[in-house]
Amino acid sequence: MTTPRLRNPYLVFLGDAFSDLDAKTGHGVAWWTPEDCVGQLRYANCRADTGLPDMDIRQAVRAGARSLLIGVAPTGGAIKADWISTLAAALEAGLDVISGMHTPLESVPRLANAAARSGQRLVNLRVPPEDIPIATGRPRSGMRLLTVGTDCAVGKKYTALSLHRALRVAGRRATFRATGQTGIMIAGEGIPIDAVVADFVAGAAELLSPDNSEGHWDVIEGQGSLFHPAYAAVTLGLVHGSQPDALVLCHQAGRTTIDDYPDYPIPPWRECIRRYEEAAQLTNPRVRCIGLSINTGHLSENARLDVLQAAADETGLPAVDPIASGVEALLEVLPEVEAINT
Amino acid sequence: MTTPRLRNPYLVFLGDAFSDLDAKTGHGVAWWTPEDCVGQLRYANCRADTGLPDMDIRQAVRAGARSLLIGVAPTGGAIKADWISTLAAALEAGLDVISGMHTPLESVPRLANAAARSGQRLVNLRVPPEDIPIATGRPRSGMRLLTVGTDCAVGKKYTALSLHRALRVAGRRATFRATGQTGIMIAGEGIPIDAVVADFVAGAAELLSPDNSEGHWDVIEGQGSLFHPAYAAVTLGLVHGSQPDALVLCHQAGRTTIDDYPDYPIPPWRECIRRYEEAAQLTNPRVRCIGLSINTGHLSENARLDVLQAAADETGLPAVDPIASGVEALLEVLPEVEAINT
Repeated sequence: MTTPRLRNPYLVFLGDAFSDLDAKTGHGVAWWTPEDCVGQLRYANCRADTGLPDMDIRQAVRAGARSLLIGVAPTGGAIKADWISTLAAALEAGLDVISGMHTPLESVPRLANAAARSGQRLVNLRVPPEDIPIATGRPRSGMRLLTVGTDCAVGKKYTALSLHRALRVAGRRATFRATGQTGIMIAGEGIPIDAVVADFVAGAAELLSPDNSEGHWDVIEGQGSLFHPAYAAVTLGLVHGSQPDALVLCHQAGRTTIDDYPDYPIPPWRECIRRYEEAAQLTNPRVRCIGLSINTGHLSENARLDVLQAAADETGLPAVDPIASGVEALLEVLPEVEAINT
Repeated sequence: MTTPRLRNPYLVFLGDAFSDLDAKTGHGVAWWTPEDCVGQLRYANCRADTGLPDMDIRQAVRAGARSLLIGVAPTGGAIKADWISTLAAALEAGLDVISGMHTPLESVPRLANAAARSGQRLVNLRVPPEDIPIATGRPRSGMRLLTVGTDCAVGKKYTALSLHRALRVAGRRATFRATGQTGIMIAGEGIPIDAVVADFVAGAAELLSPDNSEGHWDVIEGQGSLFHPAYAAVTLGLVHGSQPDALVLCHQAGRTTIDDYPDYPIPPWRECIRRYEEAAQLTNPRVRCIGLSINTGHLSENARLDVLQAAADETGLPAVDPIASGVEALLEVLPEVEAINT
């Protein structure tokens, strides 16, 4: 992969984020790699908070920061005019600027000039590598787990990172494979799969999780949903190229239709699992869904247990909330998957 | 759509094509729009023949040609060094150059210079429009038929063009919607769907076949196959964005595995139809497969009839070879589809 090397630690820029959801990139980086973050930079009207110490650019440089990381993702993915003087000041203070947005940083003349003057880098993580090969469909060594979703933004990245961490804590060899900009910031590398030209999506997924040693798990961050009228193509290419041995179905408790598409119902969990397994069988006939990961963060303890029990009853599989109940119940199924594949 | 206006008639450039398959773009254009072609330009070692009169650039200009159209598509999609002096001479003789290849024509300095000097255009059809929207999933007025395949290169374009022509001959309002470079050359417009960034494929398909009047049929050229380990993402996005009312499954008689992927068997026809209908139901619950189109060109008359009968028996649907038997049997099913949808 050709992700440029990210220089940490980071000053996480939240700017004028109007909600924590708006700042989910910053939250993800602060949560998963706090050791890589010196602080956060917020404007007076900012309504998000990652919990990192507030600081300005000068304080961040003094604290050792090497990059300003844009941790806010407004709808549309454009760089807001209000941010530009801050980003230019960061460059001039000796920081790289790291962005996961669609608009390339160098398309803003003032940033291009500031980068040229300072010698600092503008790092655009939403740019896929060049020369992605067409997928071969050839089976690869090592094991792979892919998180898949009933919808977008239901916890696929969070679940993959939780499983990866739990595997490592258990002494297993495992690698988190990032497919979106926040995941790439956390992992330091990856491929922004939704920015790849359609003919090459499965090939990009093959490139992302190459041959590996026996017993090693690649834990791959899923994207989109097979049931999403706009993004299912991305999802299917990622499923095919990943050739997963194990799937984990991710869901947001209480969501019944695709977000922003109220005419598109989310199918029952069993149906979701059948459809994902059927799609994945094309490139790995032995694939199976090992369980569900359900985001129940907004529910009471009782309601949470009810939802997890209902999911387990409907599917006959373990159902967890990674935050509230951990992912141990999913990890316990992996030896069965390994036994089938060796 | 933003396809640049193509200036016809064309001089079809075959160059050093080593087979008719190599020159399938030229063959398609000469077959479907002979009235737009003045002749073909072949090198001495060319082994393809569209049947158009052979001519050089000077003769083509005298015959009224306004563009040289690259009708040969070597593996890899690059512009061969041998061609450059011919293409430059065409520009200098007052012709546009039209290309469906991945390499942009202006990336060859000599062509960029010749175009600038002559004022003629370098037209790259493999460039998708900018600002493709994210798919809305909203139902559209008018009817849509999409050709889908058991594999790549099984006759999806040919079938769509045949159906379009038959509808027009029958006095119906119908539009052929091109999704690949040859189709775009034939139709004069379209979107090269395999060159669209994955997040926007379904949106591109929505853009391609907008709202239309009642009773009008958009006949959409399919791409790839749901059973192809590299290209299924393109196929699924096109299926979802097209929101087809009718599908026609295309197949090449005798092919049992995906071309160049011998470990990937083509499923039985019934299974293919079930999978395509299930995928398409996401955005149009009333979709149905109305029949099969099977390329039997290499078979004897008896073997051809056997294959078509076997397909009809297995699926309970009409099966035709557009060349040998025409597409009337498929057209006869359309009133049933229209009745369901009105």
